[in-house]
Amino acid sequence: MPNDLVAALDIGGTKIAGALVDSGGRLLARTQRPTPAREGADQLHATVDEVLGELTAAHEWHRVAAVGIGSAGPVDAKAGTVSPVNIPAWRDHPLVAAVRERAGGLPVALIGDGPAIAAAEHWQGAAKGRAHALCMVVSTGVGGGLILNGALHSGPTGNAGHIGHISVDLDGEPCPCGSHGCVETIASGTNIARRALESGWQPGPDQDATAAGVAAAARAGDPLARAAYARAARALAAGIAATAALVELEIAVIGGGVARAGEVLFDPLRAELRRYATLPYVQGLELAPAATGTDAGLIGAASAGWQLLGEGGCEG
Amino acid sequence: MPNDLVAALDIGGTKIAGALVDSGGRLLARTQRPTPAREGADQLHATVDEVLGELTAAHEWHRVAAVGIGSAGPVDAKAGTVSPVNIPAWRDHPLVAAVRERAGGLPVALIGDGPAIAAAEHWQGAAKGRAHALCMVVSTGVGGGLILNGALHSGPTGNAGHIGHISVDLDGEPCPCGSHGCVETIASGTNIARRALESGWQPGPDQDATAAGVAAAARAGDPLARAAYARAARALAAGIAATAALVELEIAVIGGGVARAGEVLFDPLRAELRRYATLPYVQGLELAPAATGTDAGLIGAASAGWQLLGEGGCEG
Repeated sequence: MPNDLVAALDIGGTKIAGALVDSGGRLLARTQRPTPAREGADQLHATVDEVLGELTAAHEWHRVAAVGIGSAGPVDAKAGTVSPVNIPAWRDHPLVAAVRERAGGLPVALIGDGPAIAAAEHWQGAAKGRAHALCMVVSTGVGGGLILNGALHSGPTGNAGHIGHISVDLDGEPCPCGSHGCVETIASGTNIARRALESGWQPGPDQDATAAGVAAAARAGDPLARAAYARAARALAAGIAATAALVELEIAVIGGGVARAGEVLFDPLRAELRRYATLPYVQGLELAPAATGTDAGLIGAASAGWQLLGEGGCEG
Repeated sequence: MPNDLVAALDIGGTKIAGALVDSGGRLLARTQRPTPAREGADQLHATVDEVLGELTAAHEWHRVAAVGIGSAGPVDAKAGTVSPVNIPAWRDHPLVAAVRERAGGLPVALIGDGPAIAAAEHWQGAAKGRAHALCMVVSTGVGGGLILNGALHSGPTGNAGHIGHISVDLDGEPCPCGSHGCVETIASGTNIARRALESGWQPGPDQDATAAGVAAAARAGDPLARAAYARAARALAAGIAATAALVELEIAVIGGGVARAGEVLFDPLRAELRRYATLPYVQGLELAPAATGTDAGLIGAASAGWQLLGEGGCEG
């Protein structure tokens, strides 16, 4: 039964994971290593090699037809390179060529981690069966990916859907990306905590000075903590409404650590969406929490591998 | 030689135009009437009927295989209805059914005027040969359309690409659409003139109090006039950069009356784009003035007709 599996790699700043995945999205073999994110390229290469070594040693390996990689961005799918912000030793690193060689010349697809999450949510999560969806991760940073016309739209370089770095406040704070007033400068977990502290919020005895601490305080009724989440919700709503006006969406799916704040985030987000998503064709936009779990990156990477084999829609 | 033409209708607040268009984009018959925009539905129906009557009376009519309509928005391609902001008597008006009946049951495609301009620029203008493009009209209002993966992406309702109504200033002025800080509230011709006047600009002896007057003053070095264009350029740049981050673009094409200000708009726009389009995969974005002329709406509507016949890419 050859050619009925793809190998998936999920490359992040914390872990490098791998799996063999069947066409139903089932993980047959799974392995991972901590990312030596502060080490040099040799150590990183060795770690990828170990993960791939475990996969190629699996007794199902002969059934693998392609490899899909989802990587922390930015990536360059055209060049086959990755330059993850949080892995400094890799700049224009030719990951695709390295993986292809280690995988015996199999075809290799590369997408960013935002598009990978979108592919996973579309395949198995809250965007299942939806033709037009935005899937976001709101965590230390803010990322995302797009499903258009029933298929992943990752764009020519594999980075499309990067809602964290659209400006919703053109005179706003400088963003590390070089722009100003990006969604991420307001709505990331890091910036929710920073803004709450700057406004005078102090963590209570059982709270720490993180977005989770701010969420706990907001749940207990602290007005400064609620204001920090309201501001984040406004930035997310403006970004989601902009995306809906630009590409037309049925649903926006939100995952990541900040989304785990639950109604502390989703209540103001629904209210703010009514303020920004006003055009008739965007008013019906649904909002949902992400449904895929910790293996979402691998599932999404596998999906990119299947798309490479022509199992997907329009998008290559 | 049947089935080698489509009929095109361009429905706007000023004129209703029609033509028969071949697969090379050549207009074989062309007619238009002023839009009775302030009249009732009967008068509007009669005008559409006259335009279609001229087309069906043309000796080439038997060669027509489909009808494409580009209409002032919002439109609803799913329902086949139009509700143009500037034609108050038409709300959820079943234009597709009316046109189909008048055209003897031919298949009818409906898209908004922004997507129609994008289709025209992609077929015959500055976006020709580009797989990923945003085409904008900056005029009394601000509209646009998207080319993705080599084909028009007009979205399920036919309105996608509406960059005029994305918020780039979440705390900004209320917009007539109900949202806040939309690109249009800063960059439309109407708002450029209003903002210049509010800042203390006075038209000179040969200038009127319009965006064209502000452009003439800016060209002559007036600092308040230049500031109004710089502000418009900043809003456009933030919107274009957001679109590029979300879908990945090779080129942004800008037409409409405000774009005719030339370097008064394009010089600051290029500078502002460098401030907002900072991610590696959006830095190479090109900017170009629109290249299609007054028949762009008809050309784009015809393109939608051809796509309906399966001559286009993935997108239906």
